Amino acid sequence: MEVLKQRILQEASVLSDQLLRLDSILNHQVDPQLIMQMGEEFARRYADEKVTKVLTMESSGISPAFATALELGVPLVFARRKRTIPTDTDEYSERVPSFTKGIVTDIVVARRFLKPEDRILIIDDIIANGDAARGLIRIVEKSGASLAGLGIAVEKSFQSGGRSIRERGIRVEALVQIRSLDQGKIQFE
Amino acid sequence: MEVLKQRILQEASVLSDQLLRLDSILNHQVDPQLIMQMGEEFARRYADEKVTKVLTMESSGISPAFATALELGVPLVFARRKRTIPTDTDEYSERVPSFTKGIVTDIVVARRFLKPEDRILIIDDIIANGDAARGLIRIVEKSGASLAGLGIAVEKSFQSGGRSIRERGIRVEALVQIRSLDQGKIQFE
Repeated sequence: MEVLKQRILQEASVLSDQLLRLDSILNHQVDPQLIMQMGEEFARRYADEKVTKVLTMESSGISPAFATALELGVPLVFARRKRTIPTDTDEYSERVPSFTKGIVTDIVVARRFLKPEDRILIIDDIIANGDAARGLIRIVEKSGASLAGLGIAVEKSFQSGGRSIRERGIRVEALVQIRSLDQGKIQFE
Repeated sequence: MEVLKQRILQEASVLSDQLLRLDSILNHQVDPQLIMQMGEEFARRYADEKVTKVLTMESSGISPAFATALELGVPLVFARRKRTIPTDTDEYSERVPSFTKGIVTDIVVARRFLKPEDRILIIDDIIANGDAARGLIRIVEKSGASLAGLGIAVEKSFQSGGRSIRERGIRVEALVQIRSLDQGKIQFE
């Protein structure tokens, strides 16, 4: 997605050869027009998949997931991160490490929002090692719903998350793939 | 806002005389069409205020704030909750208690996203005691930006948050005001 590449080149900061800061367009400040274009693109790519719900992680995933759900005309569900051990039997929960934060969190979705008859599109802002995405996939599997695939705004393809999920036969659509941040330079695939 | 009242009556659960569960339309699952109507209404009420940015709290505030920012054609900034003591001098931070969670969190906004020339509209999903809203107001004050006012989806007007902020001369627009949850019954103003 050319417009997103241009905005990343203009506004992102390379913090290390592993970390990219996107907080002026995605993670802290959000450009609603750009996000709507991203939502339209995800909706276009998954138009024939009969998606019934969009699922994402709080907080940075919510804006692009909202835009996608609006375009598809379906509800959005955002998984929550919990500090305490989830004990509520009305919830699906998965424990996942966070690459950027260096901590482990439990991600939680209320059972009543994922039904076996649902067809789920997972949307997230960034995929690196894919731990959060795999946690969401496991929650979808537990619920008995079917998975249409994943839509990711920015895939860091020098990390294994996207690749490892595709290898399982799951569709992953990335709007932008970054193959290197070496020497402070953003290189797209 | 009549459509929101109807959806609350259909889908909200009264958990106690203080707590209302809105997680099928706002806090966990989100109805994008309903949220867009809310955003259009906030944008209409603040149309003449020359708003340059919308500010909200992660996570439940993001959807209605995104819809409002999209309608107004301005960026959205979402404040983050931090577990660790904020020491970054590039950030504004405020310590606030959370009414529903019974914990204290630090809410944080990067300095570079709030400028003295900005005119801020704060959007949030619910106001009860108003602690989060007051934290956001203090952050706007510290930044030197001016405050157009607050837009709140659901005001629990039997609690003091909205009233105490209006008494300071700050405009607070609520789409729905709930004056009582006594005996499991939702009563609007």
